[in-house]
Amino acid sequence: MKSFASDNTAGVHPDIMAALNTANQGHCSAYGDDPHTRAAIEVFEEHFGEEIAVFFVFLGTGANVLGLRALARPHEAVICAECAHINVDECGAPEAFNGSKLLAVPTTNGKLSCASIAPRLHGFGNEHHAQPKVVTITQATELGTVYGPAEIRSLASLAHGKKMYLHMDGARLANAAAHLGCRLGELTRDVGVDVLSFGGTKNGLMFGEAVVFLRPELAAGFQYLRKQGMQLASKMRFIASQFEALLKGDLWRRNAAHANAMAALLAEYLQGLDGVRITQKVETNVIFAQLAPHHIGILEKEYYFYRWDEARNEIRWMTAWDTSEQQVKAFANRVREVVSA
Amino acid sequence: MKSFASDNTAGVHPDIMAALNTANQGHCSAYGDDPHTRAAIEVFEEHFGEEIAVFFVFLGTGANVLGLRALARPHEAVICAECAHINVDECGAPEAFNGSKLLAVPTTNGKLSCASIAPRLHGFGNEHHAQPKVVTITQATELGTVYGPAEIRSLASLAHGKKMYLHMDGARLANAAAHLGCRLGELTRDVGVDVLSFGGTKNGLMFGEAVVFLRPELAAGFQYLRKQGMQLASKMRFIASQFEALLKGDLWRRNAAHANAMAALLAEYLQGLDGVRITQKVETNVIFAQLAPHHIGILEKEYYFYRWDEARNEIRWMTAWDTSEQQVKAFANRVREVVSA
Amino acid sequence: MKSFASDNTAGVHPDIMAALNTANQGHCSAYGDDPHTRAAIEVFEEHFGEEIAVFFVFLGTGANVLGLRALARPHEAVICAECAHINVDECGAPEAFNGSKLLAVPTTNGKLSCASIAPRLHGFGNEHHAQPKVVTITQATELGTVYGPAEIRSLASLAHGKKMYLHMDGARLANAAAHLGCRLGELTRDVGVDVLSFGGTKNGLMFGEAVVFLRPELAAGFQYLRKQGMQLASKMRFIASQFEALLKGDLWRRNAAHANAMAALLAEYLQGLDGVRITQKVETNVIFAQLAPHHIGILEKEYYFYRWDEARNEIRWMTAWDTSEQQVKAFANRVREVVSA
Amino acid sequence: MKSFASDNTAGVHPDIMAALNTANQGHCSAYGDDPHTRAAIEVFEEHFGEEIAVFFVFLGTGANVLGLRALARPHEAVICAECAHINVDECGAPEAFNGSKLLAVPTTNGKLSCASIAPRLHGFGNEHHAQPKVVTITQATELGTVYGPAEIRSLASLAHGKKMYLHMDGARLANAAAHLGCRLGELTRDVGVDVLSFGGTKNGLMFGEAVVFLRPELAAGFQYLRKQGMQLASKMRFIASQFEALLKGDLWRRNAAHANAMAALLAEYLQGLDGVRITQKVETNVIFAQLAPHHIGILEKEYYFYRWDEARNEIRWMTAWDTSEQQVKAFANRVREVVSA
Repeated sequence: MKSFASDNTAGVHPDIMAALNTANQGHCSAYGDDPHTRAAIEVFEEHFGEEIAVFFVFLGTGANVLGLRALARPHEAVICAECAHINVDECGAPEAFNGSKLLAVPTTNGKLSCASIAPRLHGFGNEHHAQPKVVTITQATELGTVYGPAEIRSLASLAHGKKMYLHMDGARLANAAAHLGCRLGELTRDVGVDVLSFGGTKNGLMFGEAVVFLRPELAAGFQYLRKQGMQLASKMRFIASQFEALLKGDLWRRNAAHANAMAALLAEYLQGLDGVRITQKVETNVIFAQLAPHHIGILEKEYYFYRWDEARNEIRWMTAWDTSEQQVKAFANRVREVVSA
Repeated sequence: MKSFASDNTAGVHPDIMAALNTANQGHCSAYGDDPHTRAAIEVFEEHFGEEIAVFFVFLGTGANVLGLRALARPHEAVICAECAHINVDECGAPEAFNGSKLLAVPTTNGKLSCASIAPRLHGFGNEHHAQPKVVTITQATELGTVYGPAEIRSLASLAHGKKMYLHMDGARLANAAAHLGCRLGELTRDVGVDVLSFGGTKNGLMFGEAVVFLRPELAAGFQYLRKQGMQLASKMRFIASQFEALLKGDLWRRNAAHANAMAALLAEYLQGLDGVRITQKVETNVIFAQLAPHHIGILEKEYYFYRWDEARNEIRWMTAWDTSEQQVKAFANRVREVVSA
Repeated sequence: MKSFASDNTAGVHPDIMAALNTANQGHCSAYGDDPHTRAAIEVFEEHFGEEIAVFFVFLGTGANVLGLRALARPHEAVICAECAHINVDECGAPEAFNGSKLLAVPTTNGKLSCASIAPRLHGFGNEHHAQPKVVTITQATELGTVYGPAEIRSLASLAHGKKMYLHMDGARLANAAAHLGCRLGELTRDVGVDVLSFGGTKNGLMFGEAVVFLRPELAAGFQYLRKQGMQLASKMRFIASQFEALLKGDLWRRNAAHANAMAALLAEYLQGLDGVRITQKVETNVIFAQLAPHHIGILEKEYYFYRWDEARNEIRWMTAWDTSEQQVKAFANRVREVVSA
Repeated sequence: MKSFASDNTAGVHPDIMAALNTANQGHCSAYGDDPHTRAAIEVFEEHFGEEIAVFFVFLGTGANVLGLRALARPHEAVICAECAHINVDECGAPEAFNGSKLLAVPTTNGKLSCASIAPRLHGFGNEHHAQPKVVTITQATELGTVYGPAEIRSLASLAHGKKMYLHMDGARLANAAAHLGCRLGELTRDVGVDVLSFGGTKNGLMFGEAVVFLRPELAAGFQYLRKQGMQLASKMRFIASQFEALLKGDLWRRNAAHANAMAALLAEYLQGLDGVRITQKVETNVIFAQLAPHHIGILEKEYYFYRWDEARNEIRWMTAWDTSEQQVKAFANRVREVVSA
């Protein structure tokens, strides 16, 4: 069965697999004290500047939870979009492990704005209220939309003005950068992001994410948080070598751009089709659409994808680094047939 | 300066003080193994039935956090009103200590309904989502409104049908019962409440609240949660004897009814007054009202009260067991003068 | 039945009760913004110096857990005596709420020393190990023994030299000061203690303890920890006024000295008695002794006291501020009879 | 530089690497709903019986922490050896994330016994004490020693008799089974182990461990604990396929037996050598030995290994699945030279 379910149903890009095979030579010191890890960190520095601190972890939930743990104590609160991965898809890990309250802000397109978070920026100094300390945004958002650099800078300025931090869940930062044609630094360090979860798994890695501190002083003690947070890989070279392969050249951008292009292609094929109402801008590698329930039911028998909002008959179709044009065309044709029947 | 700030600015009712003085005789076993505690529990049984388990704690936040801790594990979620005390006034304690996610539901009057919580009753069995396990309601609500028995029963049925629990923050349950003319059991055990925080401090006690398990099997192990939760008083007799004095006769109802009557009186005096817009039904011992900002400013120099919602120029005036008719009249007259000037 | 079980089986000293009655006048701002709280803090400043921060809480477990929470993050460890209250009598609260590892050091007399803690002062900078951050001592210890000022200063120097803190559980600090004839400051601020739990309940209060930051910069944000930690009393005046009465004159010392004297008297009566082997120096208000099991059994039917170590047939007898000479004599005679029978 | 530091400095066994390459075909459902995961679980069932529940996680700390989280609530305690990985090498994760107190028992050889844990089996029902709920053992131990089946069964019986659980950290269970010539089930399910952390990384995997519930009813809700515990891999097929390759045939035993044999060989070469005092039985893939400090210093310049106990001049040499006979001989010769110089 074909899948438009998620970019994590794809496998590992051949270049990444090759890097893993190459890294598998002899003994290496464990826990990151090895040449692969040093090399991978250097590649991060090329993208994000030299004044950073990089910590590899296993998965995105780990990157988010631990990055936020470094920024907020349990009596401090984290402002996020209601649809944020940390709010709905991490089984309550931020609350359970960090103890921090999440202040969830409703959005229409997955994006926070200075206006929408303003009402949560209150109660400072009042001991009865959890103290707002972090604003976290997802880039690209869970709805596939993209923050422009100016939008990020505004949020950063607002946060910093309140002695708060700006955190970015960049599980799909590569897709956002590919969409905007930016460097990675332009969407992060240059516009005031303090700490970044940088995603690899969804962009062709086997496993592996990175917590990137763009203000390295915020990383003080983070090595303990990572170990305690069950995210310190003993055979670290096998995360590091993947990231080196991803970021050394432009593989990160090629993979992301391809996935984006496949979603755009699918959207193009479906444009104007009665029975398919696309509900969000298609800026990255995902399409949200409303279809009649019985059409959803038919398509589900042949393809994997998510029901996003049952009440609204809204589904999510996602492409990956390995989605082919042919798969998109076949799927688009099948959708067309089903909704036209 | 006079206070309409809160019912916890009042002191201790003389009968309660007398009980404390009486209890201060000789040695008593610590931690609740004493005759005062046994007597107080018996009085609770008269109100709530014999099949209960009662645990005295120091304060309302402790009662709420520990009661919820008994009901939900960290991967389970608690549905509450957005304005609930546990959501806004406990400095994130439920998240920090229980690890549970709170799913905050917007309300207009502080009350949850089956309709308003329905959208949060989803994701059961999906490992990515915190699992809804408890619905918690506040009676009377933080906005002074009261759930009728039928409303509570509906919420309990909905919760129980999903294998969830109904928890009640009854910091002002006495005020609700006084308003409705009910027994305490009619608003709790008889209508499906599983665990109750029963308030004392706001109703004339020096300190002390109780966690009342109306299904005693839910209390298994709660003695450890209370001790670990820093709520096990060594000289327990001094909480127990207060509750015995409050609940043995009708002091609980007299105190609450008086506070309610004083708020009603204030509302009556202000009714129809230009410049004071009462925003919630006055059912218990609190009035919410909108006034012009400069009127608020003048009144604040003479009386203590809370600015509830700065953006809406909404203030909160609260009465207590010891608020006098004369104080209400004087205050009403002053408000009248200020807004009419 | 008479009790030599604990100093918390005693009631409230009449002067404290009088202070509570006096404080019960009219309305007072809640949560510590009141004249009683201000006055009580001033009295603390007289004892401990003006550069302190004082926070009242409900109970000793709360004082200890929150004081340690202010000093150590979850990846940091707390070195304590194996018999420390935080290690054995708080139902795991430090681990459960603070997340900190306790490194328990065996002792013969309840006291830590520089030599005994040295082996735990390692692993600094190693991300696999919880990082030692606090040394906590109990004064007087759980075994009734007392640290002299020089001993405390040595521990403080060692801790500070490792960038660690010295915390004191002073549930019975008054008893230690009475024993040594010192001021309270001589055993705390003057010798390098950073944070103190100052006990009231065991020395004649109804309830109430204080977290005293002797380096006030360590108290940053503590108001949130207290509220979140379920230790912020709304009617704070009723804790504050008790402390004011205890510490304003010498009631704290009289109560403690009396309790100490009663234990000394009991020890004197039992000295040299075959069948009673006193196992710890009697420096404060407690006696540990070994008796034959059947003698313990007989005495238990008439008096409350604790079996301290079943395997060693060791029991604990404790006196309180209100233990009378007559009670001591009667008990001593009965012990004498039983063991001589 | 050659390494006798740890079995996690080795790379990935070629058969495991081949399995990873093979698994990298097309799309697969994420989070374990895929044929590789199903196949791997079947292989576990062949080893441990069909009545089990298996959950793959990223690393050993994750397996231990989450397995224990399933067994003990925060007011319950876990009895472990003082040298246990969970006690010293997980940076306080069990305390920080589970909230459970660890009761660490001193050992001479890394092994718990019924006699050594008996003193910790007390305080049941006393609300002041964390309640013992789990005994956890490491097989092979951190000191390389091995529990025989009868020893495990005794501990299981003792634990079960107290309504407690027996947990096993089996990071090197394969090495223990290779040493004893047992099946994996003989050391776990057959002798009463309730929950097992089964190790892969140290035995030739790239990454990946498994939490194996040998009483599947204990796994209720564990899917949420895994997700919330940041251990749910999206591309799960890449953990599962490694385990399938490891456990389908006898690769697990060959790898472990080889590592064991290399340690035995090294021990043999060093036997009777003046200047090297082997301190623990060499039963698996590790040697503990005391050497003169300056000899340690010389060897450290040429080989990686751990200083285990600085105070005792004790070092640890560990072999892996890929350690060669030639490497062992060369190292043994060098040690011989150094200590004989």
